[in-house]
Amino acid sequence: MSAALFDSALYGKLVPTGEVGRLFTDSAEVRAMMIVEGALARVQGAAGLIPEVSAKAIHRASLELQLDPAGLAEATGQNGVPVPALVSAFRELMQAPEHAQYVHFGATSQDVTDTALMLRLRQVLGHYETALDRVIAALAAQAEAHAETPMAARTYLQHATPTSFGALAAAWGWPLLELREELAALKTGLWVSLSGAAGTASALGPDPSALRAELAQALNLEDPGRSWHTDRTPILRLGAWIARITGALAKLGEDLTLLAASETREVTLGGTGASSTMPQKQNPVAPSVLTMLGTHAGGLAQTLTTAGRQRHQRDGAAWFTEWMVLPQLCLAGAAALETAGPLLEGLAPRTEAMAATLAGAKGALAAEALSFALAREMPRPEAQAAMKALAREAAESGADLVALAAERHPGITPADFTPEALLGTAPAEARGFARAARIPPAAGG
Amino acid sequence: MSAALFDSALYGKLVPTGEVGRLFTDSAEVRAMMIVEGALARVQGAAGLIPEVSAKAIHRASLELQLDPAGLAEATGQNGVPVPALVSAFRELMQAPEHAQYVHFGATSQDVTDTALMLRLRQVLGHYETALDRVIAALAAQAEAHAETPMAARTYLQHATPTSFGALAAAWGWPLLELREELAALKTGLWVSLSGAAGTASALGPDPSALRAELAQALNLEDPGRSWHTDRTPILRLGAWIARITGALAKLGEDLTLLAASETREVTLGGTGASSTMPQKQNPVAPSVLTMLGTHAGGLAQTLTTAGRQRHQRDGAAWFTEWMVLPQLCLAGAAALETAGPLLEGLAPRTEAMAATLAGAKGALAAEALSFALAREMPRPEAQAAMKALAREAAESGADLVALAAERHPGITPADFTPEALLGTAPAEARGFARAARIPPAAGG
Amino acid sequence: MSAALFDSALYGKLVPTGEVGRLFTDSAEVRAMMIVEGALARVQGAAGLIPEVSAKAIHRASLELQLDPAGLAEATGQNGVPVPALVSAFRELMQAPEHAQYVHFGATSQDVTDTALMLRLRQVLGHYETALDRVIAALAAQAEAHAETPMAARTYLQHATPTSFGALAAAWGWPLLELREELAALKTGLWVSLSGAAGTASALGPDPSALRAELAQALNLEDPGRSWHTDRTPILRLGAWIARITGALAKLGEDLTLLAASETREVTLGGTGASSTMPQKQNPVAPSVLTMLGTHAGGLAQTLTTAGRQRHQRDGAAWFTEWMVLPQLCLAGAAALETAGPLLEGLAPRTEAMAATLAGAKGALAAEALSFALAREMPRPEAQAAMKALAREAAESGADLVALAAERHPGITPADFTPEALLGTAPAEARGFARAARIPPAAGG
Amino acid sequence: MSAALFDSALYGKLVPTGEVGRLFTDSAEVRAMMIVEGALARVQGAAGLIPEVSAKAIHRASLELQLDPAGLAEATGQNGVPVPALVSAFRELMQAPEHAQYVHFGATSQDVTDTALMLRLRQVLGHYETALDRVIAALAAQAEAHAETPMAARTYLQHATPTSFGALAAAWGWPLLELREELAALKTGLWVSLSGAAGTASALGPDPSALRAELAQALNLEDPGRSWHTDRTPILRLGAWIARITGALAKLGEDLTLLAASETREVTLGGTGASSTMPQKQNPVAPSVLTMLGTHAGGLAQTLTTAGRQRHQRDGAAWFTEWMVLPQLCLAGAAALETAGPLLEGLAPRTEAMAATLAGAKGALAAEALSFALAREMPRPEAQAAMKALAREAAESGADLVALAAERHPGITPADFTPEALLGTAPAEARGFARAARIPPAAGG
Repeated sequence: MSAALFDSALYGKLVPTGEVGRLFTDSAEVRAMMIVEGALARVQGAAGLIPEVSAKAIHRASLELQLDPAGLAEATGQNGVPVPALVSAFRELMQAPEHAQYVHFGATSQDVTDTALMLRLRQVLGHYETALDRVIAALAAQAEAHAETPMAARTYLQHATPTSFGALAAAWGWPLLELREELAALKTGLWVSLSGAAGTASALGPDPSALRAELAQALNLEDPGRSWHTDRTPILRLGAWIARITGALAKLGEDLTLLAASETREVTLGGTGASSTMPQKQNPVAPSVLTMLGTHAGGLAQTLTTAGRQRHQRDGAAWFTEWMVLPQLCLAGAAALETAGPLLEGLAPRTEAMAATLAGAKGALAAEALSFALAREMPRPEAQAAMKALAREAAESGADLVALAAERHPGITPADFTPEALLGTAPAEARGFARAARIPPAAGG
Repeated sequence: MSAALFDSALYGKLVPTGEVGRLFTDSAEVRAMMIVEGALARVQGAAGLIPEVSAKAIHRASLELQLDPAGLAEATGQNGVPVPALVSAFRELMQAPEHAQYVHFGATSQDVTDTALMLRLRQVLGHYETALDRVIAALAAQAEAHAETPMAARTYLQHATPTSFGALAAAWGWPLLELREELAALKTGLWVSLSGAAGTASALGPDPSALRAELAQALNLEDPGRSWHTDRTPILRLGAWIARITGALAKLGEDLTLLAASETREVTLGGTGASSTMPQKQNPVAPSVLTMLGTHAGGLAQTLTTAGRQRHQRDGAAWFTEWMVLPQLCLAGAAALETAGPLLEGLAPRTEAMAATLAGAKGALAAEALSFALAREMPRPEAQAAMKALAREAAESGADLVALAAERHPGITPADFTPEALLGTAPAEARGFARAARIPPAAGG
Repeated sequence: MSAALFDSALYGKLVPTGEVGRLFTDSAEVRAMMIVEGALARVQGAAGLIPEVSAKAIHRASLELQLDPAGLAEATGQNGVPVPALVSAFRELMQAPEHAQYVHFGATSQDVTDTALMLRLRQVLGHYETALDRVIAALAAQAEAHAETPMAARTYLQHATPTSFGALAAAWGWPLLELREELAALKTGLWVSLSGAAGTASALGPDPSALRAELAQALNLEDPGRSWHTDRTPILRLGAWIARITGALAKLGEDLTLLAASETREVTLGGTGASSTMPQKQNPVAPSVLTMLGTHAGGLAQTLTTAGRQRHQRDGAAWFTEWMVLPQLCLAGAAALETAGPLLEGLAPRTEAMAATLAGAKGALAAEALSFALAREMPRPEAQAAMKALAREAAESGADLVALAAERHPGITPADFTPEALLGTAPAEARGFARAARIPPAAGG
Repeated sequence: MSAALFDSALYGKLVPTGEVGRLFTDSAEVRAMMIVEGALARVQGAAGLIPEVSAKAIHRASLELQLDPAGLAEATGQNGVPVPALVSAFRELMQAPEHAQYVHFGATSQDVTDTALMLRLRQVLGHYETALDRVIAALAAQAEAHAETPMAARTYLQHATPTSFGALAAAWGWPLLELREELAALKTGLWVSLSGAAGTASALGPDPSALRAELAQALNLEDPGRSWHTDRTPILRLGAWIARITGALAKLGEDLTLLAASETREVTLGGTGASSTMPQKQNPVAPSVLTMLGTHAGGLAQTLTTAGRQRHQRDGAAWFTEWMVLPQLCLAGAAALETAGPLLEGLAPRTEAMAATLAGAKGALAAEALSFALAREMPRPEAQAAMKALAREAAESGADLVALAAERHPGITPADFTPEALLGTAPAEARGFARAARIPPAAGG
């Protein structure tokens, strides 16, 4: 146990974050800030704001120097922000004061931390995209393969009507597909920041707009065309998006936990979850992790919303809050995707158990269909009342509802009321998702 | 005090919700559900699924009949959902059982409640759009008018550098402009629901997809081309968007509260906020309301995220949770916009107070600019150290920093360091926002 | 649908709040504030701070006058707090300006609103106590009656070992019993407020402490011996307590939803939850309501925590936030208790279904016990491995695990491994709770 | 940046957690679990449940063996809980299978993790107590020293009446003193867990209650007299308490940020908060950290509430959620206390600035007192109206309100309306807190 499970040597593998984990280390952050300082010097040199030779020296140094995060800790604790210490250490390590003086020229700490964050978020989104595609592909495969595999649909955890496992896979997948399509907009929302101490770029030369545009191009980020120190739109958009990702996967986790329950066992999850004292048990560990991540991420996303309320031209408390929760939120999203991918690839519906559930329900899931059939013989309210009575009788006597209905109403043909006959649009829902999942998102996504 | 201030006869005007308030009443909800039942019958009649004459009778009745919400309460408490009671009351009131039996034919409760919700959310978004445009226009006017009105920028509540009031108005406005642009996508995300008991449309005739498309057209909603009972994407997208609206306006509220503080008084808010015992006081009531709404909405949006986790094919608890928080969230957003509009229109910066703040700071806000000026004479780290020493000396002696710097460094010309001279891009930031605010959003937005 | 379901004519019976609902109406609030003004005048008259005759007139008027909350709405919207308008209307209605001028003498709005709130919270706690006792008694009865009724314990929704239904009832009840015991401290934490505009009682005569003590006695509240405008301890303590109440009942709701699931049906809930289209369905409406209330209350309690952060000597935004969420939180707690009481009284375990579950598990729940038995014959790790192999074999072949174990290990006597034989401390856990539930809490609780 | 700032080499000193940080490391957790296994063996040996010689060997090994957390990671990721891997590694490392087989005899993973958690929480509470005492002592010293130091009270950030800095210190302190008093109950709420796989202690010998009592005594924890796997009362109580601690300190942080604002500067915070580009700035870093921690902890506490909803006899998702947020919550509380202590000890009110604020307000803060003085000459409503008019006139003309009032109303003596004369109970409030802070809490606290 560390502050968060993600960093724990003991628990880390319970919440695997893949490549995203490496982006939220101290060294990755320091590296990203140095890249920003280097690129800034380069564009300032090209613009004649600082000597070209100094710019080159700084840029080169930004790629070569190694700064130890721990060495910046004392000053970061004092200043609240690591940039002053980083700039100072950078300058010293360069051992060329005539060039080093141009490091961080006219920028403010937030320009550096925000731009460095955006650089890492671009990578985060790249990894998310890959992981999300894997999850969607796994769901599409399940949807396709089981488009016509009957199972009980459940509302309020009660048997409702038949559906197919493929339709359930589609239901898991659609929200993710929506989120996948929104990725393009998130990417173009990764902005460069360059507007100085209070957003007015007053120490950034005669044409700060052009400079910002150059920096954006150098770092392959978007130029928002303005200052955005207190406008946390890119962060808030991402936070809400991740909360929806983890929420969608938490539903998957909950559904799988329920379907794996001892009384149901309609899915096989693969071999995890030993108990320390009960030899027979297999716990749905990965689904439980998904549920947990959804809950945790939901809380973090709300705190992030609060952090978006930057007073005046910068707010220390809001800023620190963002630093506290955004990494965890990104890691939670990553862990959810990294957990869901293999889980879905190893997931197998137990079709015989699904069939047994349907059989065991003794026609109860056909009740709606039977009531519509009866409504062809009598007014609909009467048909509904008749079915209610039949359902009660069947439940009490243990009789099969379809058989009972056929006995009482000769117009009823049992073969029309098998689960397979009552799938409705479930197969089409499943195949529709599989098809949509195969369409690549529009350019940029 | 009612459960929520919005419904309170005593407190309601503290949180004015305008037209949106009327959309979240019991009667508006019942009306919307009846419209859905009427439209459903009409398209089912046209498709030959129910007798055309019955369809017409139902459709007519759906427009004419008045159902008392209280009359449905008992059954709603029992069933958890109002539709069974509504259908039953509808049928009875029609006094034409031969037609009435076709009310709600093959649909499930959730089809009706979700579609009826979407109808009302379309109106909500319409009102939001109008209110948001008003807020943005007020901000654009402030930004334009005060593009060059100097004031102190503050970071961590400390004087930083000069900026302009127009630039601050722009900073308030940009997140709203981003949100304004996202409205179009929210609108096209208002989906019709028609997929029956468990999302498989099994009782909706031979071509349920066509029927859903017809219903969408009849109600002027989008056809998602699929079942979405458990996919709360439209709700979650809206919830996150509202949380960002109220968050952006909470920043406005906080800033105005701070700027109106007795020690600062850089804005005039208009005449609200009497104290029961202190005759001299004018409290920033409306800004405090904005802050409160941001906090409340943030909490509700998180709970809504949890509500998005619909287990299996429908989850009662998740569904009820959505019902509990979504109306409040919509009302909070409406109240924030309704409060911010008049507040901003009546807002007046006290330019003389802003100038006095800058004068009182005795050149401290020029420190950054002075340090860059010194850096032309000496290496930058030395210049920074020299400025730090000068700033300390000025603070201790009460001297004006610019005058002191000019005295020590003849290259420094005081006229270059007035607030007006140090606005940097603030005027351009302000005017850039005003310009962007006047561009109508792309079609559909 | 109103802002919150509690106030809805349509949905109100889904979330019944009993007597507590009446305490959070506008008229109840106005009444409570008038009682405070009346009592204040009385103690000020007795102390000679205002003329005794005026004090009597005010006190009498406070009991007799009827103020229309709606008539105070305009000014409340302006002032942010209803007291100035209330005082003004009170004075006018008295039609005796010579006395009326002494209404609200030296007090501040917050003294009145906070004290009036405490008066109502005392009643809230009274109703909670009654409702909580009813819930605990119902659980104690279930625990007692079913102390030895075997059922499957489930961890991660997987069969674990046998337990008894009574032990489960005890597990539901213990957290409530802890909360019941904390009630006494909550009650003594209901403080009178009387400290004037900024907490210094500067307009409350020569001995404000004595006056506050008198007021406390007159209203039967506690005298904290100090000003507490910004110290929201009583509210925060209550909020956290309610969140735990609703959380404990949400577990109950979740468990009942799971136990009522179609595959399990180990409980009967009573006759609610009809579907609009599926005649056979009985939805667990009340348990779903409990889950929802837990989720909603959790969110509100967090927002209340934020509201506790009162800046300086009073913070409008924090105060408004408290007003927005506290009533709902109290109502959510009340609704949870009002829902749980009847639900538990009507709850019936289906013991035959519980037995069938245990039988259907074919000895799997005896695995732990079997492994301990084997450990008497061989080292424990070997015994665990042997049991794991047997469990796998039994699962694959469909054999009964106990029978299989007995066949292989003659030392195993099947009769020692029936569910009844493996209840362990479950009966004692159940009876221990029933016993504890019958002990009245210490005086004051 | 790590997942959470607490673990970051770069940011760690911004959120110093002192000794508490060491309790939430992987090695501290493994160590605590081993202590539990050792103590369990010892009491089982004494009870004759396992051979005494094995018990001794296990107990000794539990103190001597070093287990590498990383070595347990793979299995922990698989099983979801570290205990199976820990038990297995423990047994292997003992190199004495005849004894090692009795490790973890009849216990379940949760018995070990919960008891080990309680052991660490006892230490957490110890550190909290020390840190809280330091904070309270610092506040008491400020309250005492500045009981009569006049300053402006502010409501809605508007000048209200005079108060004293000591009274403000008391207002910061009272909620902490309430929390300090609740510590005793928290400590006695640290329970031992020993109830086996599903809470029925079925594999824990003939007298599991006695065994649990012995274990409690061996580990110096409380024996709750029952199973509590799903009753998270101790955790929830602690979580709510920490949220109140961090909330109270967030108010302190907000107040100090506001009092340190450039326009106010009524406090000196000590030398932190350099800017990377503005030489004159001193940012209120520590107060901002306090605000952030309050916000973060509030979010975590809500998630913890959700985690308290343990379904059936154990719920993986709820359990994992608790693991994710509880450590951070404890660390947030620790960081808030560790930050507040030194901050308050170094805090100095700038009494001359406070006096200047009062002087600059030109009598406005005397308005309430003046209106009461006038009310001795005329009916109170008239007096209030007269004062309102005078206040407006003074504000417009720039005149001193007291002088103006004295000029118009000869009964007014200016000397009665100085800040010092209008402190009301502020000095007594300050000294009352200082006195209360010196009283040691009742035994056990």
